[in-house]
Amino acid sequence: MSLSEFDIIKNYFSNIGPERDDVPLGVGDDCAILAPGKDVNIVVTVDNLVKGVHFDDLTPVDSIAYKAVMVSVSDIAAMGADPAWLNLALTLPDADQHWLQQFSQGLREACDVTGVRLVGGNISRGPLNISTHLTGLLQNQKALYRSGASVGDNIYVSGYLGEAALGLMIHQQKIAKNNFDLKDRQYLLSRLYKPTARISTGLALQSIASACIDISDGLMSDLGHLLTSSKCGAIVELTQLPVHACFESLFEQVGQWKSPLCGGEDYELCFTAANVYAEKIQQISQNLDVKLTHIGRIENEVGIKIMYKGEIMPLTSDSSLTGYTHFC
Amino acid sequence: MSLSEFDIIKNYFSNIGPERDDVPLGVGDDCAILAPGKDVNIVVTVDNLVKGVHFDDLTPVDSIAYKAVMVSVSDIAAMGADPAWLNLALTLPDADQHWLQQFSQGLREACDVTGVRLVGGNISRGPLNISTHLTGLLQNQKALYRSGASVGDNIYVSGYLGEAALGLMIHQQKIAKNNFDLKDRQYLLSRLYKPTARISTGLALQSIASACIDISDGLMSDLGHLLTSSKCGAIVELTQLPVHACFESLFEQVGQWKSPLCGGEDYELCFTAANVYAEKIQQISQNLDVKLTHIGRIENEVGIKIMYKGEIMPLTSDSSLTGYTHFC
Repeated sequence: MSLSEFDIIKNYFSNIGPERDDVPLGVGDDCAILAPGKDVNIVVTVDNLVKGVHFDDLTPVDSIAYKAVMVSVSDIAAMGADPAWLNLALTLPDADQHWLQQFSQGLREACDVTGVRLVGGNISRGPLNISTHLTGLLQNQKALYRSGASVGDNIYVSGYLGEAALGLMIHQQKIAKNNFDLKDRQYLLSRLYKPTARISTGLALQSIASACIDISDGLMSDLGHLLTSSKCGAIVELTQLPVHACFESLFEQVGQWKSPLCGGEDYELCFTAANVYAEKIQQISQNLDVKLTHIGRIENEVGIKIMYKGEIMPLTSDSSLTGYTHFC
Repeated sequence: MSLSEFDIIKNYFSNIGPERDDVPLGVGDDCAILAPGKDVNIVVTVDNLVKGVHFDDLTPVDSIAYKAVMVSVSDIAAMGADPAWLNLALTLPDADQHWLQQFSQGLREACDVTGVRLVGGNISRGPLNISTHLTGLLQNQKALYRSGASVGDNIYVSGYLGEAALGLMIHQQKIAKNNFDLKDRQYLLSRLYKPTARISTGLALQSIASACIDISDGLMSDLGHLLTSSKCGAIVELTQLPVHACFESLFEQVGQWKSPLCGGEDYELCFTAANVYAEKIQQISQNLDVKLTHIGRIENEVGIKIMYKGEIMPLTSDSSLTGYTHFC
């Protein structure tokens, strides 16, 4: 590398994200020192983005960094916690300054948007690999677990589903350009490249949601994890899935319900709550200006039943309702 | 992969390290939940081991995992903190069960030795890359920084220097086998493959050491970082460097002082302390049965002077005393 590790840190990874009072010592010593505060528990998550798996040469570099942060922020949001401190382990094939500049820009943007401070990291030489480790704060120790859903609870999702999957189809040039206008194209690509983790929603759902997970692998897969942890099943009403009507023809090209049911990387929240909270959840939706849609109900019988026009949809013989790899 | 991510986690990454009361929720949800306790600050570090850079096909697989943990533990030790919670981001080319079994064994061994609990992780497919993120606890908020050294302070190192470098020469078959016996060979390889982080020493040095760093890149490089942070220089007495006399001929093969001065990966501590603590430091050495050697003194003039038989050693024209890449 023409730049040393120290030059890279100084030029591209210093002072990223807002300064925080709870960071007595950031980048520059053997460790960062962090002050959670009295009676505050922390939540931690780690994620990897690997070239050729999670992004490719056509992916805008700033969005790789942005998404690396947001994927971890989404995990923190799904716990009902507040993201705070980022550590970044970066493996780079070389010190390409143009690449580093764009990466740094995306990192800064994601940290500024989420209030996260970069407090430490590590740079190695090797095949491109971005590992983000994020710590969040749980002020009142009321975390949202995957395991708390009870029979009769309503099932909700935030935002709109299947749009990152459409973005991926566009990115991979699997949808013809003349099928939609430039504004829609940009919107769908932004859903893939720069997803929005639902921090405020997660925080607002403390003491309301009985269980919560973020949708990274697709609704079927992630709701499946929630159900497995909660030891119950679900009925999902297909026509209730939140999709933008303007993309109907695009969804149909992919397979009408495949994207909203099985498309990954939306980073919306899927959560359950007792019926008594239905009104409260609508208030949260209005207050935060985040669509929260009632899509189904928790049942005793294990598995996910998909309802359409009052009937349970037939599933192909090889479908398993617990995982993306099998069902979708 | 023949095994799913869930199978891999269940078979090889469950219940690693001792159970801890401060882990309300470990592996299995969107995040782990951790309880630092009242008035406890945390320290965090992240490290990467990359195939072809930090290890190769000849490196025992259990030692790759062991070292991945210990490298991060060493950073925590150098802060005077107690290692607690590990997150592991693993990128694997395939799900080789034999490899995973050995890796899991080394991970378990390192976690058991250090009291660290694996609380979460992530598995991706791609070129082999191991990213460890470790959080430690700072009970009384008395961290050891790189930046606290003052003119007149004594400089110490723990253990013996240059032995991991000799281990690397053996690993790379750069030292002929007939130059040493099997026991020495095993000892030196163990110094490379399974280093011992100085947790107890770091904890005991709280309120005594004025500055501290762990020796990962070699004494010259890491003492250089400590001096840069502390804005001062040092005199190091060459004959005081702690080396085992039995390896003298091996050190000479490499270049007599090169390994102890510049050899990386010993993961010993280099620290400074005011002269008033000299006796106390000898007591710590005896109590913990860890060699702590006085090797020099902090000076006002920037840079490192190497003394040998009362004279400053001449340095070659291209040597910089601040970094491994230049000096060693």
